[in-house]
Amino acid sequence: MSTFISFDVRDVRFPTSRDLDGSDAMNPDPDYSAAYLTIRTDDPADAEGGTSLVFTIGRGNDVQGAAIRALEHHVIGRDVEEVLADLGGLHRRLNGDSQLRWLGPETGVMAMAVGAVVNAMWDLRARREGRPLWLTLASLEVEEILDLVDFRYLSDALTREEAREILERGAAGRDERIEEIRAHGVPAYTTTPGWLGYSDDKLTYLLHEARDQGFEMVKLKVGGDVEDDVRRLALAREVMGEGYPIAIDANQRWDVDSAVTWLERLAPSDPYWIEEPTFPGDVLAHAAIRRRIAPMRVATGEQGSGRVLFKQLLQAEAIDVLQLDATRVAGINENLAILLLAAKFGVPVCPHAGGVGLCEMVQHLAFLDAVAIGGTNADRRIEFVDHLHERFEVPVRIERGAYMPPEQPGSGARMLPATLAAHAYPDGPVWQQAAPPLGAGSSDASEATDGAGTAAAPVESA
Amino acid sequence: MSTFISFDVRDVRFPTSRDLDGSDAMNPDPDYSAAYLTIRTDDPADAEGGTSLVFTIGRGNDVQGAAIRALEHHVIGRDVEEVLADLGGLHRRLNGDSQLRWLGPETGVMAMAVGAVVNAMWDLRARREGRPLWLTLASLEVEEILDLVDFRYLSDALTREEAREILERGAAGRDERIEEIRAHGVPAYTTTPGWLGYSDDKLTYLLHEARDQGFEMVKLKVGGDVEDDVRRLALAREVMGEGYPIAIDANQRWDVDSAVTWLERLAPSDPYWIEEPTFPGDVLAHAAIRRRIAPMRVATGEQGSGRVLFKQLLQAEAIDVLQLDATRVAGINENLAILLLAAKFGVPVCPHAGGVGLCEMVQHLAFLDAVAIGGTNADRRIEFVDHLHERFEVPVRIERGAYMPPEQPGSGARMLPATLAAHAYPDGPVWQQAAPPLGAGSSDASEATDGAGTAAAPVESA
Repeated sequence: MSTFISFDVRDVRFPTSRDLDGSDAMNPDPDYSAAYLTIRTDDPADAEGGTSLVFTIGRGNDVQGAAIRALEHHVIGRDVEEVLADLGGLHRRLNGDSQLRWLGPETGVMAMAVGAVVNAMWDLRARREGRPLWLTLASLEVEEILDLVDFRYLSDALTREEAREILERGAAGRDERIEEIRAHGVPAYTTTPGWLGYSDDKLTYLLHEARDQGFEMVKLKVGGDVEDDVRRLALAREVMGEGYPIAIDANQRWDVDSAVTWLERLAPSDPYWIEEPTFPGDVLAHAAIRRRIAPMRVATGEQGSGRVLFKQLLQAEAIDVLQLDATRVAGINENLAILLLAAKFGVPVCPHAGGVGLCEMVQHLAFLDAVAIGGTNADRRIEFVDHLHERFEVPVRIERGAYMPPEQPGSGARMLPATLAAHAYPDGPVWQQAAPPLGAGSSDASEATDGAGTAAAPVESA
Repeated sequence: MSTFISFDVRDVRFPTSRDLDGSDAMNPDPDYSAAYLTIRTDDPADAEGGTSLVFTIGRGNDVQGAAIRALEHHVIGRDVEEVLADLGGLHRRLNGDSQLRWLGPETGVMAMAVGAVVNAMWDLRARREGRPLWLTLASLEVEEILDLVDFRYLSDALTREEAREILERGAAGRDERIEEIRAHGVPAYTTTPGWLGYSDDKLTYLLHEARDQGFEMVKLKVGGDVEDDVRRLALAREVMGEGYPIAIDANQRWDVDSAVTWLERLAPSDPYWIEEPTFPGDVLAHAAIRRRIAPMRVATGEQGSGRVLFKQLLQAEAIDVLQLDATRVAGINENLAILLLAAKFGVPVCPHAGGVGLCEMVQHLAFLDAVAIGGTNADRRIEFVDHLHERFEVPVRIERGAYMPPEQPGSGARMLPATLAAHAYPDGPVWQQAAPPLGAGSSDASEATDGAGTAAAPVESA
């Protein structure tokens, strides 16, 4: 028997806005940040503890940290084995803390804080098993998965019985699919070429590069200026040829009518999907846009607050593609509910990633989905942005345009100690140096500090 | 010309869970709390500054405070006259802070934090005019109100043009309606009799008392045990007689099917409305419940995150009654959008109140609605709970079951200095005393400290 003895929340920030060479229509100057949680036990075998992070884009990372700290009393002093054996119970207790629930409910920073605690526990559990998280999850029995999911508020769309059927179907052939993804991974798509600020020449060059690297899909940001978007998308179509999937992402820029008008202009270049055309919580607007621009696909989810929103997006037939995120909702358990809902409605899950650590974490859910829930679905692709991976203990591994499953233990959230020290906010050495003016050709000060350079990659916040 | 020079956030909590003699189905032990903001200027005439608060129910009040503090840089050093002359611009800047927006967007603690800053500005503006906030708002020109509203994401339901028509209709007869509400107020309803824990005798006694005090509507909590609910509601119907409005409130307890089953049992006692039958963000579930239990009315909104959610509730015909709250959304400006949406769809607004300061603040919006937006609507009623009013500089005034409009300057959020000192958390004297065990007949320690007793009133959190 062991006990939880420490609950450590750190504010870690990367000065990505200093090196800005990419931007989208809503997020001009993100400083990629993490509210970084480590939970420790009194068992010396748990030397690394359990780790998770919530991704934010700068200001407010301290607010997110405060939200995580508010959950400490649910952890300290508890029996480790008991908690890890009933992570469904923990998820419900955290979401159901009656005083903290008032701050959401089950949305915003409190949902993400619950996710941090739940995910740190999953990291610890996977480490204790000596497995990568995806394999820990894929090895669960059907009834155990069902116990992990909070079906409250879902029964009008998904009952426990229906979820059981989905999981039982998923269990057949599981071992073969594990070997399949070990051999071939899950396809990625890249957002690298498509930033709003790039010249047409740079766009063309990066599109060629993406295809040369084996990516079978790319994404372009849109929503700044319609004439620019028409030209850029037509150029991309010309470069990549007919039929190559080119998604577009508006980062919540439009109302219903403006989305439709704008997208009618872009339709001739056959975008593969339109992502976040409007406010992420607006189910009915997404549904209206989708009806009016059919057959163009609609995708959303990176800022979807939790299972009830995704349930409604599916019920309203508002989306063709569900983009779950590793740190936006109340953790692995909430994402299990979302994966099951997507399977019920037959909508493919293409996880959002980028930022800092999102690729490392969300891939585990995509592998689980491929192995045990949604099965091998040709439409499943994980977003990829080549940025900040070197800061993690187990960076993602992309081969021939696919995410390859890690075999190291844990959930992927652990950063290197030197990065944690250098990027501590506001006292770490990276932040103690004055920020050079934007566009002054500055380099990330952390390179000198922790020896791991920040690639001159686009700043992706969506 | 003057400048904003200080931005002070305090954590104020009342140990209401010690004196618990009322509870609802989701909130067993709230400690009524306020993240309390005072903004000050360098103009000596602004001696009191601008004040607002966000209501929470205990744990997490510090998280809310951190969220408000994260907005300080939008205020300090700014020109006061410029900011107060364009509070629409401020509201959009705060909601649009691209880094902080990531934490919502426009939902949860960040939405409430934006509301705190916006509302403190409105308090200051009303004080500078020497008017109660409701009169400051009711005196605005139509174009100025339109500039205050963020129509982004609303245009599929409400355009600026349509809002102008509503406001122009509302402007006709405004002065007569101001005198009308000065004479008769806006009707209140009381939740005092209906707590889950009360005996049938106490319920009966309090129902008689409510009618004797002039209240023309009461509300009962439901959702604990269906047999209890059937008995209590039948008793209430017997006591109050046919036709007397008795609302019921489930505080988010149900899924769709369980709501319908439960409400079919209660229907014979003719509840006036069912409030919060399910998750507050679940538009489609509210719509489904409403269709299936028609003609029973559905009400919700106290935990509705903002204008986009209310827009959808109205578009989906999910509600008969819209219950806006003073501190849940991004401030007066967001609530202006919500009032206009309700007017567009012809749905009456019956504000949520209770807690600490919610009655004092939300009444201003109800008076504005009565005077200049929704007009005199026989279905408009403001919730009332008789608790903690004596802690405020301008407590609500209830006469013959109606809220009477205050004439003192400001928005109603200012607490008495002695209360602020006594209830500071965790260092104030009220919190330095050990909490006696629940049920030990403890009295609120603040009585001895600040000379203003906490009435032995039910603890209402919804």
